[in-house]
Amino acid sequence: AVFAEIEDRLSSAAPKRSQSLAGKRIVITAGPTHEPIDPVRYIANRSSGRQGYAIAGALARLGADVELISGPVSLETPRGVKRIDVETALEMEAAVNRTLPADVAILVAAVADWRAEASPRKIKKGETGGPPELNLTENPDILAGLATHDQRPALLIGFAAETDKVVGHAKAKLDRKGCDWIVANDVSGDVMGGTENSIHLITANGVESWEQMPKREVARRLAERIVDAIV
Amino acid sequence: AVFAEIEDRLSSAAPKRSQSLAGKRIVITAGPTHEPIDPVRYIANRSSGRQGYAIAGALARLGADVELISGPVSLETPRGVKRIDVETALEMEAAVNRTLPADVAILVAAVADWRAEASPRKIKKGETGGPPELNLTENPDILAGLATHDQRPALLIGFAAETDKVVGHAKAKLDRKGCDWIVANDVSGDVMGGTENSIHLITANGVESWEQMPKREVARRLAERIVDAIV
Repeated sequence: AVFAEIEDRLSSAAPKRSQSLAGKRIVITAGPTHEPIDPVRYIANRSSGRQGYAIAGALARLGADVELISGPVSLETPRGVKRIDVETALEMEAAVNRTLPADVAILVAAVADWRAEASPRKIKKGETGGPPELNLTENPDILAGLATHDQRPALLIGFAAETDKVVGHAKAKLDRKGCDWIVANDVSGDVMGGTENSIHLITANGVESWEQMPKREVARRLAERIVDAIV
Repeated sequence: AVFAEIEDRLSSAAPKRSQSLAGKRIVITAGPTHEPIDPVRYIANRSSGRQGYAIAGALARLGADVELISGPVSLETPRGVKRIDVETALEMEAAVNRTLPADVAILVAAVADWRAEASPRKIKKGETGGPPELNLTENPDILAGLATHDQRPALLIGFAAETDKVVGHAKAKLDRKGCDWIVANDVSGDVMGGTENSIHLITANGVESWEQMPKREVARRLAERIVDAIV
């Protein structure tokens, strides 16, 4: 983390390198969402937010105007990034929509698929004569929603964490969601929350499989691909 | 945090002050538990772990042999404390039982009351034709279990986070659980995860209500009371 920080400072202190994304508006989601059950309990997805934060930082270093819509995480905001904190999927969707129009949207967050009908006060053990029924409701699909939005970003990128049939599931997700790229993350080796990722980039042109590498390096490579695609 | 660290170092560098808890074995639980729904989803309680960690640190500074059984949190282990990381309520219960015998047990953790029947693979949205049923099961009550354990600690302290009828609920909890003290935390002002707590200490002798104060100060006062009770 110290080296990363030094590197960030050196690169922002150096004479402007490539500012190839100057003037481009990019929205990124990162982290989990927390869906309240009552004032003290919630449902969540495991997600450290590290990959999304690294991508936000990499794009800001290339001069992009980056808005990072973040679920609850314990991470510092990357330099030059505007961060908006949210807790639930509904809040995340609303925050993403408020950032439009944008040139690129990258949905890295591990959004909870379901939310519970939250009780306004703490459910007491025993008061319901056994475990409560949670009455789950499906959350909005933020990626699919952007794909059909009248302000759809020109480049719309989704993430998929998969434990099996990684490329097959990711290709199906690309078609189903109507986005441009899927970054498929093979989490079968329990890399979630770790510092490295094993990535397949799925586009209309096919599949690129990257060797396992640090999340910061995944972020740099993805930023390069985005420059190639939109500049 | 910097001042707290300086203070800790000064006090541990200073000529031994009161080591009044030397030789006493104390087990403390802290933080939330995470109950998996599948490899990426879980149910949790809101808890930063800060109050439990502060108590562990305060007791270690008085010379106690402290074992801290911690759910998932983003905190550094206080100096001189032995920390054991767990994720679920069942793991926390097993870890607590392995630390016995102990002179004092302080159960600060916000243990999830229920666990789900976890799926070994990621539940796909849509595969169940709607939100899944979670099949919740009640988790063991670690505090009540210790109260009737044949190695029951001589001083058994529970915590209660309450939003209403704080003292009444806490007194009822003291009787129901069979513990010696309840530290009742009034969370109606949304102090959970913050740096201050508003405490009522419930014992067989009655109720002491403390003004709202930093969690570190709550820890110091509670440590003093423990010294008075067992030394």
